[in-house]
Amino acid sequence: MSDRRSEWILVLYSDFWIHAPDFLVEFLVFLKHWSMGSTRARIAIDAMGGDHAPAEVVAGALKAQEELGVEILLVGDPQQIEDSLRQQDAIGRVSKGQLEIVPSEGAVEMHEEPLSALKRKPNASINVAMNLVKQQQADAVVSAGHSGAAMAAALLRLGRLPGIDRPAIGAVLPTMVPGSSVLILDVGANVDCRPKFLEQFALMGTIYSQCVLGVAEPKIGLLNIGEEPSKGNDAAVRTHQLLVDNPNIPFVGNAEGRDVLSGNFDVIVCDGFVGNVLLKFAEAVGEVVVQVLKEELAAGLKNQISAPLLQESLKGFKQRVDHVEHGGGLLLGVAGVCIISHGSSQAASIFNAIRLAKEAIDNQVLERIRSSNHQSALEQEAVN
Amino acid sequence: MSDRRSEWILVLYSDFWIHAPDFLVEFLVFLKHWSMGSTRARIAIDAMGGDHAPAEVVAGALKAQEELGVEILLVGDPQQIEDSLRQQDAIGRVSKGQLEIVPSEGAVEMHEEPLSALKRKPNASINVAMNLVKQQQADAVVSAGHSGAAMAAALLRLGRLPGIDRPAIGAVLPTMVPGSSVLILDVGANVDCRPKFLEQFALMGTIYSQCVLGVAEPKIGLLNIGEEPSKGNDAAVRTHQLLVDNPNIPFVGNAEGRDVLSGNFDVIVCDGFVGNVLLKFAEAVGEVVVQVLKEELAAGLKNQISAPLLQESLKGFKQRVDHVEHGGGLLLGVAGVCIISHGSSQAASIFNAIRLAKEAIDNQVLERIRSSNHQSALEQEAVN
Repeated sequence: MSDRRSEWILVLYSDFWIHAPDFLVEFLVFLKHWSMGSTRARIAIDAMGGDHAPAEVVAGALKAQEELGVEILLVGDPQQIEDSLRQQDAIGRVSKGQLEIVPSEGAVEMHEEPLSALKRKPNASINVAMNLVKQQQADAVVSAGHSGAAMAAALLRLGRLPGIDRPAIGAVLPTMVPGSSVLILDVGANVDCRPKFLEQFALMGTIYSQCVLGVAEPKIGLLNIGEEPSKGNDAAVRTHQLLVDNPNIPFVGNAEGRDVLSGNFDVIVCDGFVGNVLLKFAEAVGEVVVQVLKEELAAGLKNQISAPLLQESLKGFKQRVDHVEHGGGLLLGVAGVCIISHGSSQAASIFNAIRLAKEAIDNQVLERIRSSNHQSALEQEAVN
Repeated sequence: MSDRRSEWILVLYSDFWIHAPDFLVEFLVFLKHWSMGSTRARIAIDAMGGDHAPAEVVAGALKAQEELGVEILLVGDPQQIEDSLRQQDAIGRVSKGQLEIVPSEGAVEMHEEPLSALKRKPNASINVAMNLVKQQQADAVVSAGHSGAAMAAALLRLGRLPGIDRPAIGAVLPTMVPGSSVLILDVGANVDCRPKFLEQFALMGTIYSQCVLGVAEPKIGLLNIGEEPSKGNDAAVRTHQLLVDNPNIPFVGNAEGRDVLSGNFDVIVCDGFVGNVLLKFAEAVGEVVVQVLKEELAAGLKNQISAPLLQESLKGFKQRVDHVEHGGGLLLGVAGVCIISHGSSQAASIFNAIRLAKEAIDNQVLERIRSSNHQSALEQEAVN
């Protein structure tokens, strides 16, 4: 969009371009940069976060900058980032408005308690990255570092969206229905959830499903151990009632474990403990299945098919269930786009996380949650 | 064992057998029956429980009686059971000590609140089946009916084993390591669990893994959202400490969702909410995978292999992940062997549930939990 607009401006003035005074040329160049800057997504990457940081993080970011047309801000130790860029033969690509290095000092380690570590290290990469969003120098943050620290930093630096008590991490999984996916939230931000929180997750999930996943009429489910409204623990029963009563949530009922990938639900809400276990289990199941199936196929097909051909099919399958393809989870409910990736993320995963960030920005997810909550509040007032 | 013992007795006296007085012959026949009766498993089947009751339940029970050498007590409406037996052409197999019908009136329906329904229907099939165990007329109960009702009936009629506050349902899943499986408990009996309960689950799981699954040194894990002891909610952190401190539990640490099927754990404890979601998800994943893989294989292999051959391989795979193969969950902690099967159980599932019951009886799981707790209590006293 932005590129076209600026090209159109340049074309419009091309007739007298060669005769134009310098200030006009300068103005047009400024105009082009400004118009691009205002709509092209600028993503701050926590280059020090994750098991394979910064090398794999930088590699994924480079690919995203090239293929997705986003601007990348690599936040971290400049020396280490430059080393990684050199390894990728990409040190020459650092330029303002394309790929920049933003210096930070240290990172929150996996064993550290998030809040105290964030306080102790104000210039840690995740803090600096969040500040970039706060100061509107970036539109989103992607981090494969300590997920608790990423969430805490987002809460501290960006704050919550109005009407949201707790942010949730949403993860998208494929379903049995080709082309359809299911958004699960929360998958790890909140280990204990009050019914009210789950109701807010359902609301945010509805909007995300509509705006980013393109589901016109999303079907929302509550993860539970039975279909009946009376099933589950006290929190589940009370949440069920809240979801039934909320006119803004297209709630279709409880979803059991077996329903998660059925395609009958577009969004499933649960607390972060169950969601995290489920997500990690789902990701690992892909590998288990490939393993078991290789044995079964090898036995059953009596070597009728060549190993590379089988490998290729299994690869296609793995792509559909593998977490690398999903890149990470969107932290919904904070006042900024934040993608939390796996600690084990490699370049492909980081690339997909950046794509996810871009989609959230392009589809104005935050603005929609904000206005939806505003709408809900007005409706609530009208009722009272 | 019992057959051999009685055969040995018969052989011993064979020399004077033909000259022996009638009363001696009668005594020997009695001895043979008694010795068989005392060790041959007698299983009470809730013939009215489950979506496909009684037809599929009866079919599974018939197969088990034939192939496993167990005695079957079919508990339910005699008319309906006889109809099912006739359909199977097996009405002639009803005989004392092999296959019996025990009359009951009604069953607890899926939508009913267990406790009040059990009270309102004292002669419901699940109540009658539990009474058979209580009166030592049966060694075990298998039910595919309302699982909450089965647990409540077991608690009310049989009571808990000493030292156990809450019974747990254990389910066995295959792992990535060929031939090794993982026991998950609880998978649905308790939606809320105190740390103390989870500690008891771990103890019961240890014994079950050793005695029934034949794992000499089982590795016990706590389902959690991270490896570190500090991860998870308050209950998880406190449970972690209890498991570390208990010398009778070979605790190896937290198990994340991705570790469940890794083969690194023989037993994983969790509350019944998470466990139930996980189990049902795992079962469904088998089907999802088969579906996705069919598409991928069809595309990738460009019809190089025949459909029946592919079908055969996928069947082998399905068997390893399908719930039908596992039959159901063992209700651990009540003073009787109770297998809780899926409501959707068909004959194959019921058959496997009966096999599971037989294994628990043959391996004296209850006695071992009882004596282990007795041992723990003594050790505890010695410490105090």
